Amino acid sequence: MELYFLGTGAGMPSTRRNVTSISLRLNQERGTFWMIDCGEGTQHQVLSSPLKPSQLEKLFITHLHGDHLFGLPGLLGSRAFQGGLTPLDIYGPSGLREFVETSLRISETHLPYEVQVHEIDEGPIFEDHQFVVTCHQLAHGVPSYGYRMEERAAPGRLNQAKLEDEGIAPGPIYGQLKAGMDVTLPNGRVLRAKTYLSSPIPGRKVVILGDTTPCSAIATLASGADVLVHEATYASADEAKAHAHHHSTSVDAATAARESGVKALILTHVSARYDEDALCALLREAQVIFPNTFLASDHASMPILRT
Amino acid sequence: MELYFLGTGAGMPSTRRNVTSISLRLNQERGTFWMIDCGEGTQHQVLSSPLKPSQLEKLFITHLHGDHLFGLPGLLGSRAFQGGLTPLDIYGPSGLREFVETSLRISETHLPYEVQVHEIDEGPIFEDHQFVVTCHQLAHGVPSYGYRMEERAAPGRLNQAKLEDEGIAPGPIYGQLKAGMDVTLPNGRVLRAKTYLSSPIPGRKVVILGDTTPCSAIATLASGADVLVHEATYASADEAKAHAHHHSTSVDAATAARESGVKALILTHVSARYDEDALCALLREAQVIFPNTFLASDHASMPILRT
Ligand SMILES: [Zn+2]
Ligand SMILES: [Zn+2]
Repeated sequence: MELYFLGTGAGMPSTRRNVTSISLRLNQERGTFWMIDCGEGTQHQVLSSPLKPSQLEKLFITHLHGDHLFGLPGLLGSRAFQGGLTPLDIYGPSGLREFVETSLRISETHLPYEVQVHEIDEGPIFEDHQFVVTCHQLAHGVPSYGYRMEERAAPGRLNQAKLEDEGIAPGPIYGQLKAGMDVTLPNGRVLRAKTYLSSPIPGRKVVILGDTTPCSAIATLASGADVLVHEATYASADEAKAHAHHHSTSVDAATAARESGVKALILTHVSARYDEDALCALLREAQVIFPNTFLASDHASMPILRT
Repeated sequence: MELYFLGTGAGMPSTRRNVTSISLRLNQERGTFWMIDCGEGTQHQVLSSPLKPSQLEKLFITHLHGDHLFGLPGLLGSRAFQGGLTPLDIYGPSGLREFVETSLRISETHLPYEVQVHEIDEGPIFEDHQFVVTCHQLAHGVPSYGYRMEERAAPGRLNQAKLEDEGIAPGPIYGQLKAGMDVTLPNGRVLRAKTYLSSPIPGRKVVILGDTTPCSAIATLASGADVLVHEATYASADEAKAHAHHHSTSVDAATAARESGVKALILTHVSARYDEDALCALLREAQVIFPNTFLASDHASMPILRT
């Protein structure tokens, strides 16, 4: 599991940062990747990344502003060009379906795979045996969502050494215990699964927010996350402007990270008005409040390890 | 007057060529530029070009395939971000208005300037004192247009030396003669304008085609043009594929250029399947038929001089 940043700028592309797109690589977990937001030029960024459009499984749009959306029709077409055949699920606010359908129809883009657009409300929007994805609305003037991607806990590890010490040979019994089932041996002895299993391995939790100004939904979404990806369009000196435009400063993001008890914070969606020195300062003022803070850049990646 | 190529690839962006967009720079003529097609990432290409989005005056879409269209909503937003306030006219096939309106509405993009979308039929679509733009439909499976941008002839040059030799001093009379009006002097002598004017200076003619397979409309559009910009998606070895997909080979383009009596041919919209060597060959086989042929590349420009 790894985050790979395709675009980390705000509003408009610059020569250094493209508009927003983030991928969550799930190679080992599912052999696929998920994408969060798809600003114009995302397919161009994918070209010089390790990602393969055919392996895109799910796409989550945080809100419908152009810098998070306008790369979507082109990416859908390229996924077809490049041999993508598996169904694709797209999640996002109301209006997303009309945009996708209109773009594909007017351009006569005929996809060889199925696209399902899910217009979302708050709450769980997807779950299977591995993951639960929930979303909450943030505060951005237009409907803007944050997504919590939560991996399910894995069963504890089986203590094989202990079993062998007790004279129980490897066999189907091991599998039953591993699955949490108690086993009664032919001699009447009962093996309790919990005796031989370590405690369950917690799943990883990744929270990725759409554009937002500070609001209470952030702590709800981010509570205890391994990684929180939070916009930091502005430095704290420009706080008034940030809040007037429904955005956050890096200090807002760090404060939210500290209050939510997350393990790491990644800042993204930074304004092109700041040069490299100003971005260093923007990052440092966040680190004062929440030390484990990183600033994303285009094509940067961060592995998310089990702890 | 200069052509500046923003994107010269076909179908999908590659790391070397973006999808299609061409600009016609009219700095000296109008202080503006026009754009023909606007594939995804055109605004990114503009960033590293001498073009200023605020100076974009007219945008012509040849057809509604995504590689010619999907950069349009983002460019409109960026033109606003970058201070564009003057009205913008957009020309293209039926369906263009719905795409533009839906994209702007769903993304809540509120432009501070007026956009007028003109859904076109064959014939003249714009004229003023400097230019006449006409379009014809090509053959591409979907409605695809070629545009002929024709500069009006300029009045001939006034032979001032001759006037002075004849004792006629500079003054308003010169302006009247320059404007083609005959003048009667107080002494009754009649000065015929044509005596003092060289013949009119022909306007330049630039013809830019949308995607097309060979068809008779090309010669109609391109007749006598200074420059013909023609797609060359395929090399002639792939002619069957080219025509099956409603495209042209470089040999088709050169043949059309020769038959239309144009002065120069520029090939663009080349498939990413060809490497540099193959593109050299694609160009050379066109030059055998029409020697004054060029192959466009991203950020290449070509001045169009009065002859
Ligand atoms: Zn944004
Ligand atoms: Zn095309």
